[in-house]
Amino acid sequence: MVKRALLTGAGGFIGSCAGAQLVARGFEVHAVARRAHERTDEGMIWHRGDLLDAEKTGALVAEIRPSHLLHLAWYTEHGRFWDAPENLDWAAATLRLARSFHAAGGERLVAAGTCAEYEWKDECCDDRTPLRPSTLYGAAKDATRRVLEAYATLTGLSFAWGRVFFPFGPGEQSPRVIAAAARAAAMGEPMSCSSGDQVRDFLYVEDVASAFAALSTSDATGCFDIGSGKGTPLRTVLCTLEELAGRKDIMRFGEIPPRDEPASIVADVRRLRDEVGWRPAYELREGLERTLEWWRAATFAPHS
Amino acid sequence: MVKRALLTGAGGFIGSCAGAQLVARGFEVHAVARRAHERTDEGMIWHRGDLLDAEKTGALVAEIRPSHLLHLAWYTEHGRFWDAPENLDWAAATLRLARSFHAAGGERLVAAGTCAEYEWKDECCDDRTPLRPSTLYGAAKDATRRVLEAYATLTGLSFAWGRVFFPFGPGEQSPRVIAAAARAAAMGEPMSCSSGDQVRDFLYVEDVASAFAALSTSDATGCFDIGSGKGTPLRTVLCTLEELAGRKDIMRFGEIPPRDEPASIVADVRRLRDEVGWRPAYELREGLERTLEWWRAATFAPHS
Repeated sequence: MVKRALLTGAGGFIGSCAGAQLVARGFEVHAVARRAHERTDEGMIWHRGDLLDAEKTGALVAEIRPSHLLHLAWYTEHGRFWDAPENLDWAAATLRLARSFHAAGGERLVAAGTCAEYEWKDECCDDRTPLRPSTLYGAAKDATRRVLEAYATLTGLSFAWGRVFFPFGPGEQSPRVIAAAARAAAMGEPMSCSSGDQVRDFLYVEDVASAFAALSTSDATGCFDIGSGKGTPLRTVLCTLEELAGRKDIMRFGEIPPRDEPASIVADVRRLRDEVGWRPAYELREGLERTLEWWRAATFAPHS
Repeated sequence: MVKRALLTGAGGFIGSCAGAQLVARGFEVHAVARRAHERTDEGMIWHRGDLLDAEKTGALVAEIRPSHLLHLAWYTEHGRFWDAPENLDWAAATLRLARSFHAAGGERLVAAGTCAEYEWKDECCDDRTPLRPSTLYGAAKDATRRVLEAYATLTGLSFAWGRVFFPFGPGEQSPRVIAAAARAAAMGEPMSCSSGDQVRDFLYVEDVASAFAALSTSDATGCFDIGSGKGTPLRTVLCTLEELAGRKDIMRFGEIPPRDEPASIVADVRRLRDEVGWRPAYELREGLERTLEWWRAATFAPHS
């Protein structure tokens, strides 16, 4: 039987990698994106759709009848998404989508959560960390997951939730710190940074996508942290970009005052490794090299 | 300034009492119900609307521009609502409604939660009881509350959540136990019952409505249990109905096998009493008398 996956957020940062990975794993992939795509990726069928339109989305799902749903779409505008009221719309849209999916015979639902569901104390995260989000984004994701868990238990829908930590890579929105730093390194422009002491779990976007693709193929259920499992100070990432670009002293540490943020946020990848068999394919340095390469091409392209 | 309240679920069990109580407290009440109402309750303006239709609901809210929202509507079909997929739709509709309300200048949101948000252990509920719902209904209410709390904190919306325990009274759906027992007592028909040992917090529906009206007037925020604060064995309620009707031996205890349900579920009404100043107006016996009276009239009405 053909495995038919519906992929939402297919035009987004993680979603644009996930489509090809689902194809590689033998799925017939139906990709939904708000804007029309001219792309003709092999094995992918593109649909134009706004997931906030419940009626049209329901009709599309009923037409496609996917066996699998990889739901990555959400409101993610940099600087706004943490506290944006749009989080309510996306929680609502996700619940309706899950219902449409199950009603159309769907079997396996994988959706994107976030490390912001956890309480961000100094040491996080593992299975003892309370789920106590401090942002509207985290609260909306956390609440969505709670309902989907209960719904899946009740209906027998197979459900996995992948909590994304700190992805980076080509195509990331440039105001985000690693994208901005890669761009600065490519251009040789100075960049104001915080101390860079904060330890985060950075994962190359192709690996984030491969974790979601692996979860889609697996029948493991529940919550999975998606990260490298290793903590790296942001400073190390920025200095590596500088070094790879052959620059010196463009990262101006300490020019941005410290914010009230946790010292360390690192994923616990044991479930993903042991129960799903997933491993990252890229070392941090290699991911940063590729990111820098992409920015070099982007910033030197004519009329870009 | 006129206090203008939008009341949802206005045609429902609690909502049909709440409207008049809001009017009595000086609100201009805009009532929304799915079916058209011929009622001309003084001070109430009726609107026909389906809250699951996001676009039309948004337009209605923008037109009314309520300062207060008392949101009681949800999917409540007896026997089905605990596990119905409609819970997802109502969680979604509630989030969208809250957003529309705030966008239209709304200031105070009061919404109906449920004692099923709590973990139902043998002794519940108070502020140490974990929020760990075991039904889809409870999970959807719990999740909705979590998002609304975060949204209210962020936007400055004044938000209170009233957890309903075990309301009873005229107009309750007759398959529900007290309604069925009142009907049986009025008719003199035997009724099969469980042991009746389960202790619950029963509250007359006018008092449930007055608690919501009091919360609407108050500016106290957070979660409030809505109950009498006293536990009563179901058996006592059923025997009281029997006695009030002048019947004997119509309640057949033990004919329904025991279910796996908590021994005791009683509200902690301290916050409602101390911070909102609410008191119930009806003793249990008086509420049961009125309920019985209503069923007597209903069952003896011609062509009913």
